[in-house]
Amino acid sequence: MSVVDGADERYVVGVDFGTLSGRALVVRVSDGAELGTAVHAYRHGVIESALPDDGPALPPDWALQDPEDYRAVLRHAVPAALAAAGVAPSQVVGIGTDFTACTVLPTLADGTPLCEIPELRHRPHAWVKLWKHHAAQPQADRINALAHERREPWIGRYGGRISAEWQFAKGLQILEEDPETYRRADRLIEAADWIVWQLCGTETRNVCTAGYKGIRQDGRYPSGEYLSALNPAFADFVTKLDGPLLPLGGRAGGLSARAAAWTGLPEGIAVAVGNVDAHVTAAAAQALDPGRLVAIMGTSTCHVLNGDHPAEVPGMCGVVDGGISPGAWGYEAGQSGVGDIFGWFVTHAAPVGVDSHERLTELAAAQPVGAHGLVALDWWNGNRSLLVNHDLSGLIVGMTLATRPQDVYRALLESTAFGTRMIIEAIVGAGVPVTDLVVAGGLTSNRLLMQIYADVTDRPLSVIGSTQAPALGSAIHAAVAAGAYPSIHEASAAMGRVHEAVHRPDPDNVRAYDAHYAEYRALHDHFGRGGDDVMLRLRAIRNAALDAAAARADTLLEVAG
Amino acid sequence: MSVVDGADERYVVGVDFGTLSGRALVVRVSDGAELGTAVHAYRHGVIESALPDDGPALPPDWALQDPEDYRAVLRHAVPAALAAAGVAPSQVVGIGTDFTACTVLPTLADGTPLCEIPELRHRPHAWVKLWKHHAAQPQADRINALAHERREPWIGRYGGRISAEWQFAKGLQILEEDPETYRRADRLIEAADWIVWQLCGTETRNVCTAGYKGIRQDGRYPSGEYLSALNPAFADFVTKLDGPLLPLGGRAGGLSARAAAWTGLPEGIAVAVGNVDAHVTAAAAQALDPGRLVAIMGTSTCHVLNGDHPAEVPGMCGVVDGGISPGAWGYEAGQSGVGDIFGWFVTHAAPVGVDSHERLTELAAAQPVGAHGLVALDWWNGNRSLLVNHDLSGLIVGMTLATRPQDVYRALLESTAFGTRMIIEAIVGAGVPVTDLVVAGGLTSNRLLMQIYADVTDRPLSVIGSTQAPALGSAIHAAVAAGAYPSIHEASAAMGRVHEAVHRPDPDNVRAYDAHYAEYRALHDHFGRGGDDVMLRLRAIRNAALDAAAARADTLLEVAG
Repeated sequence: MSVVDGADERYVVGVDFGTLSGRALVVRVSDGAELGTAVHAYRHGVIESALPDDGPALPPDWALQDPEDYRAVLRHAVPAALAAAGVAPSQVVGIGTDFTACTVLPTLADGTPLCEIPELRHRPHAWVKLWKHHAAQPQADRINALAHERREPWIGRYGGRISAEWQFAKGLQILEEDPETYRRADRLIEAADWIVWQLCGTETRNVCTAGYKGIRQDGRYPSGEYLSALNPAFADFVTKLDGPLLPLGGRAGGLSARAAAWTGLPEGIAVAVGNVDAHVTAAAAQALDPGRLVAIMGTSTCHVLNGDHPAEVPGMCGVVDGGISPGAWGYEAGQSGVGDIFGWFVTHAAPVGVDSHERLTELAAAQPVGAHGLVALDWWNGNRSLLVNHDLSGLIVGMTLATRPQDVYRALLESTAFGTRMIIEAIVGAGVPVTDLVVAGGLTSNRLLMQIYADVTDRPLSVIGSTQAPALGSAIHAAVAAGAYPSIHEASAAMGRVHEAVHRPDPDNVRAYDAHYAEYRALHDHFGRGGDDVMLRLRAIRNAALDAAAARADTLLEVAG
Repeated sequence: MSVVDGADERYVVGVDFGTLSGRALVVRVSDGAELGTAVHAYRHGVIESALPDDGPALPPDWALQDPEDYRAVLRHAVPAALAAAGVAPSQVVGIGTDFTACTVLPTLADGTPLCEIPELRHRPHAWVKLWKHHAAQPQADRINALAHERREPWIGRYGGRISAEWQFAKGLQILEEDPETYRRADRLIEAADWIVWQLCGTETRNVCTAGYKGIRQDGRYPSGEYLSALNPAFADFVTKLDGPLLPLGGRAGGLSARAAAWTGLPEGIAVAVGNVDAHVTAAAAQALDPGRLVAIMGTSTCHVLNGDHPAEVPGMCGVVDGGISPGAWGYEAGQSGVGDIFGWFVTHAAPVGVDSHERLTELAAAQPVGAHGLVALDWWNGNRSLLVNHDLSGLIVGMTLATRPQDVYRALLESTAFGTRMIIEAIVGAGVPVTDLVVAGGLTSNRLLMQIYADVTDRPLSVIGSTQAPALGSAIHAAVAAGAYPSIHEASAAMGRVHEAVHRPDPDNVRAYDAHYAEYRALHDHFGRGGDDVMLRLRAIRNAALDAAAARADTLLEVAG
């Protein structure tokens, strides 16, 4: 793209670090125009089976990354995006970043990742633990049990449950499985903050991950008493986390000479405080006003919402002061299976001739609400919010010999909308208003799905105007850090993009869905809240059957050997 | 097939009247060898939308047949089977028949079907009502309500529920919707008995359909008091039913000259008393001893079982003295969806590459019991036994992103086996032993399915040795009627064919399925016995949605017109 702006036009760069790659985006400060972008894939992707270079094998549920892959994004994607935009680096005034979370790594006091120290490189615990590293569940279980036993005041802010993905579970796992690595870790830091440290040479911590992933509430981390009750050697864990805490949109520092050389950007320009991909999307979608629920819908859905006061919502991921933007309480919730359920159906349950989203959507859109006679529970990948149980599973009821693939497909779309409505009702029930939905992510292009969400939730649904929402959000934060706008709100209003109320609830459909939703809700509570724990028992039966089969196979191998 | 038997060898002919065609089979009396067969399709098949020859349209749920199509089977299939067998007609000593039931028609006193009287031919109620004519549900509902209100002694023999398919519901529908046809009907007769009347010129009634479909218990039909409380004009209904009642295997008469001309068989040979396709299969499978449950498994499953005393089994189709063979009490139960559920899955829910029973079975057979983590309720076509509710529907629980088509397919196979176990447990719970299973029908060739049934029911499973079981059973009855054997038991022992205990329960699998079945049973009772009537409400939602859409379409047409 060729730029015809004047020499006084200013630009910012947003960099979005995803699960498999990083994307850089060059954005005009005055109006948020997206001028050029580039993506760089991580060389090692997600490290799940063994450490690189013939390193040791990893147990199940591990998911690591190599921090050098993050630096490579700065070296490759940023210059490429600048070139694509045709923007002179001298006109760039700031850089902002966002990351997956909780993605966390142990470092020395100077920020050197432990996995880059030769004598620690073969230790799995020295590497970055990606958000979806799920091997710390035993630690998380103890964290939760003890918190409830001691009635820790912070546990209610997380819906009553700390995730195995978060800093304390992952940190405790390092301590208990590799005490030497734990001892050598002067710092345990979110990748979101580490990349900022790499950019400006100064360690900072952002209030967003400190709150949502680090259990920082009301200015304090969990007490040493609580931590030593978990494990005496864990009492000082907070000393590895605590650091200069800055609000979102703040300036972490100036771009270092080293990072300027990597990126081709001018030394000294503003580097924004670290942030998280979902949360930064709210700014890109002009959805910072209290009551606007942002749903980032892809394989799964993440919801973020500003409220003007803190409330304890059962089963929420968390509520954090300034967690989305300063001056508001940021709420976060999520659905662990959305687009990946629809993808599962197309791949594994749709017959030839109707095995595409396009064809199924076309057929499903032609039927009136309720005509398929089905209702599903959308727990193919467990339930992340309200019930917070990864062992829950999917359910469909109402099949007859007349049921067709598009009927089931539509029921699956609807089930995820019902799941969103459950979350909205829990939030509203706790006294926090939800006035409308703003949707971002890959599923926004499915008009049927969007209309179903508007009808099921009985709320107008707006759609973000960018397909690179997190990178745009990071660029907005960079503009604030550079002083181009006085606040994220004002930068968002100028640079963000949203198509307002594209999908409005149809009163007839709303009424029809009320009846259908009542069935979903009854099934949700029956199967999710102890009425019938059949899903948990089926999971146990499945695991036992697979373990026994594996043991038999091992015995056969031994006999054969 | 060329026959080398001596001139003194004797043969019988069995004729099986199915839903779409009739099959004749020539069988050797001495050992049951099947020597030749022929099929003749009904010209009018099932009459569902309008009467033939541009006759009036039919409402939904109607299903009629033309009695002339049955005679055509005698004229075409019997001679063709004889020719195929290479048997001299002079060596045939008897003919037996079996029919779908309750399939019933109104006739004059001489057996002339009312639909063959020119001035009645345009009246739908003058035709044969096929078993699956389901338009008499309102009459059945009143029959049941009144029976319970008056505590009629016979209602317990039918599991507490008379079906809309049976004689009283269909008869009452004729009376109330077409009183003139009802008045003209001197007789209302099962097609099973009418075809015998056509063969020998004498009206008889068989104890099987009189008991299972005609509510004849302990020598009596329902009382005139009860019938007139249903509808005063219905008080004399039994006079249209009552006739010379004969036991199964009895001789109804000698083949008439007219029928001899149709069939090419010798005039005067024995014509066996009428019978029903499922019940006659027990003789073909050598499964007349008390405790042997015969399962005829095709699109649906029918179960018949002899017991040595009458018991009231909740939700059974019925128990009839001599209903399967003289001297025993015959129990009947059924599952309304079995093979048609598997067929539905292959057609509408299996992706390309695994969309065949063979491939799905191969993949499903490779997994240990319980490894798919799923359980299903097999009610795609409602539930015919125990719950007796056609508005129930299917359910699957336990899906994850790792669920594959063969997992769901296997769960569906298992769900029908669990349904069979529920029926067995109800029968055993009422004090009637079930020692083993004998399976007939099209599904016997699926070895995985058969092993699942043996494992789930923890009973040895035998497989019938004939692919033309009902016709063979009818031939066995013909041999008894001809005096070749003193009883059905002895004829069955000589002429029937079964592979004993082909599939034996595997103790490990039995134990594993016990846990799985406990989940099925809990879901069965929750969704089928009032814990959650979501299936009934979803059906109502569906019907209302479709009705509203149809009404809107009509309005649009009117506006357009």
